[in-house]
Amino acid sequence: MNQRMYGLGSKCSVIREIFEYGKARAAQVGAENVYDFSLGNPSVPPPQAVEDAIAQLLQGGDMTALHGYTSAPGDLEVREAIAAHIRKTFSFPADAAHLYMTCGAAASLTVSLSAVCNAGEEVLTFAPYFTEYKVFAETAGARLTALPSDPASFLPDLAALEAALSPKTAAVLLNSPNNPSGVVYGEETVKRLAALLAEKEKEFGRPIYLISDEPYRELVYGGVQVPYLPAYYNDTLVCYSYSKSLSLPGERIGYIFVSPRARDAEALYLAVCGAGRALGYVCAPSLFQKVVARCQGMTGDVSVYEQNRNTLLAALTSYGFACVPPDGAFYLFVRSPEADANAFCERAKQYDLLLVPGDDFGCAGYVRIAYCVSPERIARSLPAFEKLAKSYGL
Amino acid sequence: MNQRMYGLGSKCSVIREIFEYGKARAAQVGAENVYDFSLGNPSVPPPQAVEDAIAQLLQGGDMTALHGYTSAPGDLEVREAIAAHIRKTFSFPADAAHLYMTCGAAASLTVSLSAVCNAGEEVLTFAPYFTEYKVFAETAGARLTALPSDPASFLPDLAALEAALSPKTAAVLLNSPNNPSGVVYGEETVKRLAALLAEKEKEFGRPIYLISDEPYRELVYGGVQVPYLPAYYNDTLVCYSYSKSLSLPGERIGYIFVSPRARDAEALYLAVCGAGRALGYVCAPSLFQKVVARCQGMTGDVSVYEQNRNTLLAALTSYGFACVPPDGAFYLFVRSPEADANAFCERAKQYDLLLVPGDDFGCAGYVRIAYCVSPERIARSLPAFEKLAKSYGL
Repeated sequence: MNQRMYGLGSKCSVIREIFEYGKARAAQVGAENVYDFSLGNPSVPPPQAVEDAIAQLLQGGDMTALHGYTSAPGDLEVREAIAAHIRKTFSFPADAAHLYMTCGAAASLTVSLSAVCNAGEEVLTFAPYFTEYKVFAETAGARLTALPSDPASFLPDLAALEAALSPKTAAVLLNSPNNPSGVVYGEETVKRLAALLAEKEKEFGRPIYLISDEPYRELVYGGVQVPYLPAYYNDTLVCYSYSKSLSLPGERIGYIFVSPRARDAEALYLAVCGAGRALGYVCAPSLFQKVVARCQGMTGDVSVYEQNRNTLLAALTSYGFACVPPDGAFYLFVRSPEADANAFCERAKQYDLLLVPGDDFGCAGYVRIAYCVSPERIARSLPAFEKLAKSYGL
Repeated sequence: MNQRMYGLGSKCSVIREIFEYGKARAAQVGAENVYDFSLGNPSVPPPQAVEDAIAQLLQGGDMTALHGYTSAPGDLEVREAIAAHIRKTFSFPADAAHLYMTCGAAASLTVSLSAVCNAGEEVLTFAPYFTEYKVFAETAGARLTALPSDPASFLPDLAALEAALSPKTAAVLLNSPNNPSGVVYGEETVKRLAALLAEKEKEFGRPIYLISDEPYRELVYGGVQVPYLPAYYNDTLVCYSYSKSLSLPGERIGYIFVSPRARDAEALYLAVCGAGRALGYVCAPSLFQKVVARCQGMTGDVSVYEQNRNTLLAALTSYGFACVPPDGAFYLFVRSPEADANAFCERAKQYDLLLVPGDDFGCAGYVRIAYCVSPERIARSLPAFEKLAKSYGL
């Protein structure tokens, strides 16, 4: 059998391991006494519009068509609805012919990376980064290199990017709002990054694709704006998923938008279609394509996440923990009070606080707290965090 | 960008091309006057149980759980329901720990092939074969070699298999009931094939995996039995999809069953999980996992296909066309009256009969007729087939 695949299957992700520990521990001491902050699984239900859309579609009559194959890039009407939403929301020229429906964010990323990378090329990203990026880049035959962020802000270190860009760079992978830091890259950062990439494209005489992984786009707090990358840089692919905004992570539905301003945009789009075909994606799930088309611009009640963020940030800071305040997503990335974040997570376990060490996100010395749980659970966890802080003399 | 992916995206499959022609032609002359036999898209609706299951699940209450991530191999209860069905139907020991839920047959195949193949190895199959096998094998880094079938029966040529098996053979890919021939491989064939593979495994000192692609398992006519391959050969992976049996092709739901009798079955299963992860499959669509669990052993009204098969086979034979009578699936694989099946398909187009040349299935000189359309359309198409036959002087 294939040893890479065996390795990927047998080495469970750390996050999944902690999650499984949490389930076992809950069986011992009761679920209400375990504070599992490991998984980025939305806790707010999908908006009612999702259930209404499903009900309407089921009443629509032609079940053979409803559950039938769509065209490989996705149902045309669905893509037109999404294109209209992009035009309206971002004042950016989008059309169905540049949209490719996917089975969620992971599919968006593997397909995009496989479309733009050749064997031996490099994909650059910034730490901290989502742990699976490395796997997806390697599936595309490429190598992932994680560059540092500014530890005071978790914004990308653009000097490091400038030094790392080379004729071997196929793509730069950005994730804002960021998992696990929660940081949003503002317009100033995006403009500088875009200018740098454009300059290097010219210097190397080859495209450098910017892949924007943005499943958390709508999960932002305090009125923060998330710049729309295709408006700043032409060679951009947007990888979107409805997992977080519509609380549909299990249904595997998202899209890739190939900027019509990308060089050879039509050929690039065909490469995306080809990569989807090569990886076994015949079409995105039919019913949920049609559901999301009817729920454009909607979200679950994300104010719950903002409330959790505020509660947890205020409390943890008051206990002496250090954290860059996140503007989006549903993660806090907290500095470990001891150098070894794994040891910190082990100690947190004694208080039934399940946190994820930052090492797998490419940032040793930090832990991720996924606060997509109920506000009631957040409130109940605070005494445990306080005891944990005291145990370090904070 | 990646030239392999660009090539796969820009070279539309022949089937899709004919399908698009059919839509354009229908706009000219009316849909009722175009006899499109190109696509294997089920025409019978899903059984009522599917819609009932969806409705029940939506009334169940916890929408966050219903649409949430399942574990990566699939929801445990779902896998247990499928395992129970396998045990009951095939008297074969199956359990949840050897089942991996997938996004349909194409995903089952790419994941399985990626799990068992190493770069430079070979996958053997028999012509005629489903056109995408080549793409999926190449994604796994392997090379597909198509071996001949006996033209009188379209059963595998086992002498050719014996000659082709080598230490480089990672897998043999079987598809019964077959697309496009409709032929079912009976027990005698399966036993001889299994004995040959077992002998060669011993000779080469390596596993040779048998991958059984069986989305048409339930579409068989006249009481024909489809042998369950894991009962005959230990190193077997079953790739199943509910696309045809439950008429859910767009929902992308199926599974891989790793035989617990395979050598290192647990490691093989982990390689399957790893391949799913590497290809970007986080989990199979959540709602439809739960739907199919409630519809085990059910099918749409496949008697419609049997009726179509009988009508078409009798009529075409009476007009002078030659065809191996199919026992399953919903395809007739008809011998072209002229050597060049492409020329035959072009002439058929003049009668608004849209057929697919066998060349892409690895069988020049034949055409595929997908009869998964309404019986009324079959009946209306017969005069056109008769004229086509007469134009060849049959």
